[in-house]
Amino acid sequence: MDAWRTNIVDAGPTHIRVRGHDVLELMRGATFTDLIFLLHHERLPSVAERRLIDAILIGSADHGPGAPSCAAARLAASGNRQSPSAAIAAGILTIGDEHGGAGSACMELISAGLERARREGLSFPETAQRLVDDARAAGTRLPGFGHRVHAAIDPRVDVLFSMAADSGLAADGIRFARALEAAVRERIKPLPLNIDGALAAVLVDLGFPPMVGKLLFIVGRVAGLSAEVLEEYTREKPMRIKIPVAYDGVPPHENGT
Amino acid sequence: MDAWRTNIVDAGPTHIRVRGHDVLELMRGATFTDLIFLLHHERLPSVAERRLIDAILIGSADHGPGAPSCAAARLAASGNRQSPSAAIAAGILTIGDEHGGAGSACMELISAGLERARREGLSFPETAQRLVDDARAAGTRLPGFGHRVHAAIDPRVDVLFSMAADSGLAADGIRFARALEAAVRERIKPLPLNIDGALAAVLVDLGFPPMVGKLLFIVGRVAGLSAEVLEEYTREKPMRIKIPVAYDGVPPHENGT
Amino acid sequence: MDAWRTNIVDAGPTHIRVRGHDVLELMRGATFTDLIFLLHHERLPSVAERRLIDAILIGSADHGPGAPSCAAARLAASGNRQSPSAAIAAGILTIGDEHGGAGSACMELISAGLERARREGLSFPETAQRLVDDARAAGTRLPGFGHRVHAAIDPRVDVLFSMAADSGLAADGIRFARALEAAVRERIKPLPLNIDGALAAVLVDLGFPPMVGKLLFIVGRVAGLSAEVLEEYTREKPMRIKIPVAYDGVPPHENGT
Amino acid sequence: MDAWRTNIVDAGPTHIRVRGHDVLELMRGATFTDLIFLLHHERLPSVAERRLIDAILIGSADHGPGAPSCAAARLAASGNRQSPSAAIAAGILTIGDEHGGAGSACMELISAGLERARREGLSFPETAQRLVDDARAAGTRLPGFGHRVHAAIDPRVDVLFSMAADSGLAADGIRFARALEAAVRERIKPLPLNIDGALAAVLVDLGFPPMVGKLLFIVGRVAGLSAEVLEEYTREKPMRIKIPVAYDGVPPHENGT
Repeated sequence: MDAWRTNIVDAGPTHIRVRGHDVLELMRGATFTDLIFLLHHERLPSVAERRLIDAILIGSADHGPGAPSCAAARLAASGNRQSPSAAIAAGILTIGDEHGGAGSACMELISAGLERARREGLSFPETAQRLVDDARAAGTRLPGFGHRVHAAIDPRVDVLFSMAADSGLAADGIRFARALEAAVRERIKPLPLNIDGALAAVLVDLGFPPMVGKLLFIVGRVAGLSAEVLEEYTREKPMRIKIPVAYDGVPPHENGT
Repeated sequence: MDAWRTNIVDAGPTHIRVRGHDVLELMRGATFTDLIFLLHHERLPSVAERRLIDAILIGSADHGPGAPSCAAARLAASGNRQSPSAAIAAGILTIGDEHGGAGSACMELISAGLERARREGLSFPETAQRLVDDARAAGTRLPGFGHRVHAAIDPRVDVLFSMAADSGLAADGIRFARALEAAVRERIKPLPLNIDGALAAVLVDLGFPPMVGKLLFIVGRVAGLSAEVLEEYTREKPMRIKIPVAYDGVPPHENGT
Repeated sequence: MDAWRTNIVDAGPTHIRVRGHDVLELMRGATFTDLIFLLHHERLPSVAERRLIDAILIGSADHGPGAPSCAAARLAASGNRQSPSAAIAAGILTIGDEHGGAGSACMELISAGLERARREGLSFPETAQRLVDDARAAGTRLPGFGHRVHAAIDPRVDVLFSMAADSGLAADGIRFARALEAAVRERIKPLPLNIDGALAAVLVDLGFPPMVGKLLFIVGRVAGLSAEVLEEYTREKPMRIKIPVAYDGVPPHENGT
Repeated sequence: MDAWRTNIVDAGPTHIRVRGHDVLELMRGATFTDLIFLLHHERLPSVAERRLIDAILIGSADHGPGAPSCAAARLAASGNRQSPSAAIAAGILTIGDEHGGAGSACMELISAGLERARREGLSFPETAQRLVDDARAAGTRLPGFGHRVHAAIDPRVDVLFSMAADSGLAADGIRFARALEAAVRERIKPLPLNIDGALAAVLVDLGFPPMVGKLLFIVGRVAGLSAEVLEEYTREKPMRIKIPVAYDGVPPHENGT
């Protein structure tokens, strides 16, 4: 079998380097968030960039009660006490376009909007209105807007955006996201940007490709899942969880089968 | 990298063979259960052996309401609609010693008992009583006895055992399991053999090693998980599941953090 | 939390029923494949239907050397010896549109073709040619045709199709798949139906929805993964697998980081 | 169903708090590593504690070529392009006692040693020698010593230990680990502490329970897996990976099956 190529890590008997940086030096002087940025971006972040990634990871780590990822991790920890990694993996597997995946989809939407504005020479408000009208005509949802718990305004959005503004990192991604929010309010109904939309805008401004929206959500969420699994192992008995189920299928067949 | 060795499947551009058997011939004349037996036992089963494995797989496919494996699969299907395999995998990850794993543990118990009876020249009832007394003294649970739903008697046990008896396949495994059941009733309390214990006894009599108890449970359960995931995808909306949670930790800190 | 509804399994303290059929009766008289059909189709199969599903599951269980699903399962078994379910789950997670997923995609293609032939009053050869031309124009691959190992003809295809013909179950699905194969040969190049395409055609004729193509592949493959994991646990040492890697990224930075 | 209790996260329509700390404040002023510490330790870390956790997470993120976790993640990304979370989960599932799990086992060893020294009034060198002799007599491996790649000395160990010493956080955990290393050298052969053993010693000194050794390895490794999956998606074709396999089982049966 041919060797697999990679441009991420170069490791040998006497060294480990991540994108050319010596891991020993990184251990001495960098933060874990620096390394996460480096692994996904090919360079180390500035202090302001790192603080935004910290805020995104912190905001993703645990949404609180009832998240499918947390519940699935606890169910696996409840039935399978031999493998904490199995429980964390079960939690991660619930993450898709519907749960934690809106960030990536919103990054694609913003990127498409910025590209269209440039190509067609339109203002951001004009472009945003066209994208919103397109979505309405197609009957598709706009990723990054609305939240099943935070019906009004998710305060994490303002924190992220004010941090970006204060550090001079707010750019076209955030401006276009706000234009989309205004267009949604005008053309459909008030549906504020949610945390997925906010991190999407910031990540576009930091130069990440759309898939990183989903990946950073996973990296952040794993910290929460790990703590939830630890609590389930140490505080709860195995097999404590019983989900109530109601059968509504065909009645019993006569004669056995 | 050296080639990985395997004695299971030999596949080339013009053939696929499982343990020497041509897959085309198997497709024409065998059942899936024949193949499952062949994959784990190194030969094809007799008709009676195959019928017992069919019964074990059918009895394992879906325990019904509230099983952690089913619930975890549905949670993953609820958040991640891009990958049915992710949902089925999440369900499988809940399977461990506590959920679906008692079969393997009970096979180890029965095998240890049979070995001890032989070595020490004891009758099955005597050996069973010593194992039960050992477990009581050590404060450990006896795998394969009792069930959280079927408090009285799991009728699947009698079906399996009478099928084994009628076909002449009941042997020392089943006899020792019944001796254990009697010793448990006498020394502790009436805790009937459950489905895990019954399949353990049958699998010992069919010549399988203990790990196969867990593996066949997984193979059977995947059929149920697959159907549950299909129902979740086709009948339910994404993110419909909210688990109620009650926080009982420290109160809010003053001054923000 | 409201109870979760399901129309699959009804289980209580004294009974377990799958789609109205008593599990005890199924254990006594049905095969595992009968149950798999029942779980996904809402009724038990005829003998001929069951034999086709047996053949599909047998043909899916293990493609042989080098399948990603097998390799991932063995890697997990190599690093994590505490949880066979984790290893089987890792194998399942490699299954997607690219690996084992072509069956579902081909079922969608065939269903779309049959619908179009009906709607536009076209013959199967005419419809197939239009679909092939559409795919060529769009630059998309036709799922269910060609195979990376069986470059010529996968003999499993003929086995499935002759079993279907002999039992009178071959219908429009198979006829349309053959029309597609002819159109591919004529308009592009000889790319024979592969096993995914063949099982897709048969499953359409048996009345299953497209997602079942992927699900039955998973159900069949789990039998093979289980045997591979058993072999890895019992025959190989932990951590024996080392994948060769070649770094081709940026050179070391000066001054440490 | 009763609500699930948790003492980790309290979330409502207007707030999210982790162990009483407002998530908005944490986003503004904390690092991701602060949050990871808080989730697993019930309080925020000091600056020196945080820097040690940063170093541990950075040292765990990617061991480099050939790690089973990385290979399994890439295999899943190669076959299943619909779900990055499935690929990351497959990587995590390879993590067990044999891969990334030595940290937890070594924390248990150190904790047992500290307890024994206290209880029996022994010095650390005496206690360490007894533990090493016990392991030799039982034929068990000592977790946290030796490495399949870094045969000599893993330089990450010195980095971690000198950081702990410089900040005044080195305590009995590190001292006992060094005593164990000396006893191993004296009684068996020179087998230096590896990165798992070093992080175990540091985590004991920071007050974490043994399971956290495995959990922090997973949290760190997910950052590397995420970057590997991103590279596989963006740089490699689906299904590019073929593992070479050599069949060494029974020869073909005559007469087909």
